[in-house]
Amino acid sequence: MKSKAMVLKEFMKPLEMVEIEIPTLKEGEVLIKIEAAGVCGSDVHMWKGEDPRTPLPIILGHEGVGRVQEIKGEKQTIYGEELKAGDLIIWNRGVTCDKCFACKILKDPSLCKNRKVYGINQSSAVFPYLNGCYSEYVILNGNTDIFKVEESIDPALLVSASCSGATVAHAFDMVSGILGDTVVIQGPGPLGVYAVAFAKNIGASEIVVIGGSKERLDLCKHLGATLILDRHETSITERNEIVMEKTRGMGADLVIEAVGTRGVAEEGLKLLRTGGTYLSTGYAQPAGKESIDFYRDIVSKNITIKGVWVSDTKHTKMAMDIVMKNKKDFAKLISHRFSLEEANKAIEAMNSKEALKAVLMPDEALESKK
Amino acid sequence: MKSKAMVLKEFMKPLEMVEIEIPTLKEGEVLIKIEAAGVCGSDVHMWKGEDPRTPLPIILGHEGVGRVQEIKGEKQTIYGEELKAGDLIIWNRGVTCDKCFACKILKDPSLCKNRKVYGINQSSAVFPYLNGCYSEYVILNGNTDIFKVEESIDPALLVSASCSGATVAHAFDMVSGILGDTVVIQGPGPLGVYAVAFAKNIGASEIVVIGGSKERLDLCKHLGATLILDRHETSITERNEIVMEKTRGMGADLVIEAVGTRGVAEEGLKLLRTGGTYLSTGYAQPAGKESIDFYRDIVSKNITIKGVWVSDTKHTKMAMDIVMKNKKDFAKLISHRFSLEEANKAIEAMNSKEALKAVLMPDEALESKK
Amino acid sequence: MKSKAMVLKEFMKPLEMVEIEIPTLKEGEVLIKIEAAGVCGSDVHMWKGEDPRTPLPIILGHEGVGRVQEIKGEKQTIYGEELKAGDLIIWNRGVTCDKCFACKILKDPSLCKNRKVYGINQSSAVFPYLNGCYSEYVILNGNTDIFKVEESIDPALLVSASCSGATVAHAFDMVSGILGDTVVIQGPGPLGVYAVAFAKNIGASEIVVIGGSKERLDLCKHLGATLILDRHETSITERNEIVMEKTRGMGADLVIEAVGTRGVAEEGLKLLRTGGTYLSTGYAQPAGKESIDFYRDIVSKNITIKGVWVSDTKHTKMAMDIVMKNKKDFAKLISHRFSLEEANKAIEAMNSKEALKAVLMPDEALESKK
Amino acid sequence: MKSKAMVLKEFMKPLEMVEIEIPTLKEGEVLIKIEAAGVCGSDVHMWKGEDPRTPLPIILGHEGVGRVQEIKGEKQTIYGEELKAGDLIIWNRGVTCDKCFACKILKDPSLCKNRKVYGINQSSAVFPYLNGCYSEYVILNGNTDIFKVEESIDPALLVSASCSGATVAHAFDMVSGILGDTVVIQGPGPLGVYAVAFAKNIGASEIVVIGGSKERLDLCKHLGATLILDRHETSITERNEIVMEKTRGMGADLVIEAVGTRGVAEEGLKLLRTGGTYLSTGYAQPAGKESIDFYRDIVSKNITIKGVWVSDTKHTKMAMDIVMKNKKDFAKLISHRFSLEEANKAIEAMNSKEALKAVLMPDEALESKK
Repeated sequence: MKSKAMVLKEFMKPLEMVEIEIPTLKEGEVLIKIEAAGVCGSDVHMWKGEDPRTPLPIILGHEGVGRVQEIKGEKQTIYGEELKAGDLIIWNRGVTCDKCFACKILKDPSLCKNRKVYGINQSSAVFPYLNGCYSEYVILNGNTDIFKVEESIDPALLVSASCSGATVAHAFDMVSGILGDTVVIQGPGPLGVYAVAFAKNIGASEIVVIGGSKERLDLCKHLGATLILDRHETSITERNEIVMEKTRGMGADLVIEAVGTRGVAEEGLKLLRTGGTYLSTGYAQPAGKESIDFYRDIVSKNITIKGVWVSDTKHTKMAMDIVMKNKKDFAKLISHRFSLEEANKAIEAMNSKEALKAVLMPDEALESKK
Repeated sequence: MKSKAMVLKEFMKPLEMVEIEIPTLKEGEVLIKIEAAGVCGSDVHMWKGEDPRTPLPIILGHEGVGRVQEIKGEKQTIYGEELKAGDLIIWNRGVTCDKCFACKILKDPSLCKNRKVYGINQSSAVFPYLNGCYSEYVILNGNTDIFKVEESIDPALLVSASCSGATVAHAFDMVSGILGDTVVIQGPGPLGVYAVAFAKNIGASEIVVIGGSKERLDLCKHLGATLILDRHETSITERNEIVMEKTRGMGADLVIEAVGTRGVAEEGLKLLRTGGTYLSTGYAQPAGKESIDFYRDIVSKNITIKGVWVSDTKHTKMAMDIVMKNKKDFAKLISHRFSLEEANKAIEAMNSKEALKAVLMPDEALESKK
Repeated sequence: MKSKAMVLKEFMKPLEMVEIEIPTLKEGEVLIKIEAAGVCGSDVHMWKGEDPRTPLPIILGHEGVGRVQEIKGEKQTIYGEELKAGDLIIWNRGVTCDKCFACKILKDPSLCKNRKVYGINQSSAVFPYLNGCYSEYVILNGNTDIFKVEESIDPALLVSASCSGATVAHAFDMVSGILGDTVVIQGPGPLGVYAVAFAKNIGASEIVVIGGSKERLDLCKHLGATLILDRHETSITERNEIVMEKTRGMGADLVIEAVGTRGVAEEGLKLLRTGGTYLSTGYAQPAGKESIDFYRDIVSKNITIKGVWVSDTKHTKMAMDIVMKNKKDFAKLISHRFSLEEANKAIEAMNSKEALKAVLMPDEALESKK
Repeated sequence: MKSKAMVLKEFMKPLEMVEIEIPTLKEGEVLIKIEAAGVCGSDVHMWKGEDPRTPLPIILGHEGVGRVQEIKGEKQTIYGEELKAGDLIIWNRGVTCDKCFACKILKDPSLCKNRKVYGINQSSAVFPYLNGCYSEYVILNGNTDIFKVEESIDPALLVSASCSGATVAHAFDMVSGILGDTVVIQGPGPLGVYAVAFAKNIGASEIVVIGGSKERLDLCKHLGATLILDRHETSITERNEIVMEKTRGMGADLVIEAVGTRGVAEEGLKLLRTGGTYLSTGYAQPAGKESIDFYRDIVSKNITIKGVWVSDTKHTKMAMDIVMKNKKDFAKLISHRFSLEEANKAIEAMNSKEALKAVLMPDEALESKK
């Protein structure tokens, strides 16, 4: 049996449709038919060759929801359910070694040095070849952490839970309670959208989103933002004044950085109240240096800054919980759906920021959505 | 009755000996005869006019141990003991309002906007005048948090517990366990010395101190540092390599910044392992901006940075606990003792870094030490 | 000027209407006209003489919202706003010393040994006499922590935020995140109703309430409970099976005890999953002993039990946040409104459990509600 | 090649020396020559048939230090070092699945339902047969978490780090700082001895141990206890009074239960101050029910109780850190050494409480100790 897959062979060149022979599974491996594959902003970076982790050739796609086709041996979900052919599932996109200092002493598998990520650092030239989700089928390693998914849900809604959703979950997992807080979110992309949803669902009273796209800001408002600030219509100083005014002159309790470009952290730190927390999720690739006044912006204000790097299985679960509680809202996040063959169009739509979130789906599923 | 006091009337000019009439105490106030007054590095900054909080005229001295002379009404210690004339005591140098957002909602009195500090932001022109410890007597406000001190202890040893000791206690209060950890301390001054003592007493396995003074580094070694690195004999790159080598290439679990000059945070962050914590205590005055690569040094390493601003009564207690457990070691911290009249000499000794820690003492106490 | 007040002179006897001369205020004191006074379940216990803290004579009433009439000197709210005559306010019912081990070292003012509570441990025979809320006026001590209240809110809705709401806030302040969790609440009284609201507002996925009153259980359902279990229709074994079934056989992540009668903890601990947490808020008066198998119910399951005693100002704020986010729901909690003169009827309505929550209001306010 | 092993075939009957053929290793397995095998108190329970987990036949012994003989494939230590024949190692006695809710969502592998423990729930009738440490050789599963051990250390000192030491580490991992605290330890057995060492090494000021054996109490004193209380010479009331006197009438900050017999928790909870924490480690087998007054002993004192069940790899590391920092003290814990053939004598010495800690060693190692 063969699987169609869209393969990146050369950076900046179109992905090519390839037919790959599905190999015989090894013990513990699971063959999955992809029902939805998310096209992530980082896929665009990888396509351009900006992410040093990218081996060539590669099947991109680290966000997936799919249906079990075959299991070699036995495999259980996180809840101990026996996995069966036909089950609809989602999985942690990262597979960790579960044996190193990060996994076993820090208990922070996000930091595992041996972490392998479908569609990111696994070439399609390496067994079992079907290592990414821009494909008809993907083969999951026996160490993959798996969750069953309700049949009733549109798979496209869930895919981002395994990447941007989980990363934002990781950020919120670092704070201990935000009831009644004012949360500022820098950036209304997928990370920011999840940040709005988390903030609202765990009790924030005011949610301010700063961004440059009216459409995205409006979606944030719909999801629960109580104030949106358009970067094109306000200066840094004005935004600072607005946040201070909204917080009795104190500043925000929590600022979540979800942009990752130079200068963002400089602005964000100044929006915090004394004792506040800055969670930085957006700097997922090199972006130059921030110029930080430790005395004024960190020490004399007793500020906490936390870098948030990727996520683990707990965070995938947290993100799924958020999506399941807000299905209708997250449906609005999916701006574009394409077939597997149209993957290059999907990347272009993300690159141009025309799409907030694009998802690849099998033809038949796509058809039923029309 | 009058009290002699050394008053700063003009920045950069010698303190002048003045006799101040001791006023009638108000309800709750306590008149204290100073037994030891610490000369802190920040006193030098204040003397130079570099600290914007300094009103003139002022009696400097925020670190004190003294003996109760008179109490107006009743006053209890933190442990509910009735305070009596003759008691030897130490107190939290900062008096907080106990009624604001920081005090009552954040429960972080270090951040109280109404915090008054003896010898720092209280002029000697304002009632009750005796508002600093470079004086025969000081008058404590009824809201001051007081601890009794064992008669057997040399008061000079304890004074720093109320300032640098408490600040470092605040830093360690922010982490939850360092057993077996490698801790790097940037700076072997009083803050650094306390950091060594805390790290050793709560279970660190390796304590590395970076500094520029052989004498101070040697004291740190005596207190428990397992490795000292002289800035004059090693480059930033070499120090990084040494720390990496000592930690299986991972980096330190915890880095404590106790210097506060430009570039220190830039070096320190690179010494951390992924998931490590940076506690910044030294930037207590403006020092320019650090150039920080959020992607490389914070986000991709999941780093936590915490600014540590002053301290509260819990931290004073923690610092006292550390001194009481390590009396002999802390005796070595006191490099110079002067009489009240010699306060200008004491400031000069601190300014020239000839003294690691200078203490002012009454003549009779000084005599008994000779 | 005089204030009418309902005074308890003898246990189990009707409160008597008394006119008390309003004394000249001392520095910091604030005279408040009561707009709403909550009748708490513990008022019934006090009326019966079951609470050993109760001095006689006493004006009951520890839950109040009122309007500032006069301030002696200056007084600020928690947010530093200058209090003015005419302001509508709520306050922390407990006034702590802010100077003891609990207040300053533990930073847990709930445990302050010197805590004074309006309407609970302050006799009306002691200056300033108006020490409880079953009164036209109450006089607040200068150490009272005060919040302004929006004019638009019905004061009756907020009163419970200062007692049962704050206690439940204290419980939730002890856990660090419940997103997606299954929370079981034992008891659908005011504590339980707040527990449902907190659980829902900070992200629980399943909220199970166990109780004996259909009406109260229905209110819980309305507020967000996903399952209600009537004690009269289910056995302990059946309830355990239902909770296990709802949680894949694992048990609840969090159980909140809000009843305080013998046997409740025994049932509740068995509903937890391994690693779960039991927050006990209901045992506010002696209730005999629970028979606990440490091996089976605590150690081998790695369970955490936390006793929750009263609350502090942070918790009052948290409870206010919850009420303000759910005004319509909390309006349903107020089952009965009475005039001050009808206080004995109010106590009877609470005693008979006819009322879920009764509130005393001035005649004119009562009139406008009709 | 064969391995001698002492096998338990029938409860209460002497272990029998058996020669077992060493099987061909499977991928990832490691053959270890035992250098020291601890005889744990729970081995006595298992020998008596009191532990329901015990399959027959079984090679007892869950505490081991040994030398690598052969590795099938590759295997790395927790620090990523390649394991080689000849390496001296210790390992986490429990092997977890790393895939379930406890392992991946709670990140609490102690609670893994699939946890396999050498010498406890693995029969010698099941491949690879050498599943316990009362043996010349043991075969470690590929999922076992391994640490290298310095050649210079006496292996007997370290064995308990993988069981009682790790369990106590788990307890201390649950509290966030005990500097200056008063810690009461109930029980001076191996758990209690480790508790003393942990408390001292992370900063407790007062360490009170309650026990019934003079010898064990003396060892605790040697290790750092500041007060020992003999159960045979004091009543429960007297011990309570002594603890209150030592703590200004407040009670202990932390009580660690390390006994596990009926009535111990009842005594221990009453020794706590308000807001204190009770860590229960000793109830590792059924011991009847404790009679607990929730109002008096938990709720009105805001007490936290935590059950501590077994341990994970982080805790093994913590216990190793403690032993390495206190080698001389821990050498005193090893009261008896026996050869493998003398295993029945060793069990008898533990059963009679003649031995505090017995260790089995190869003849040649035993010889060198004489």
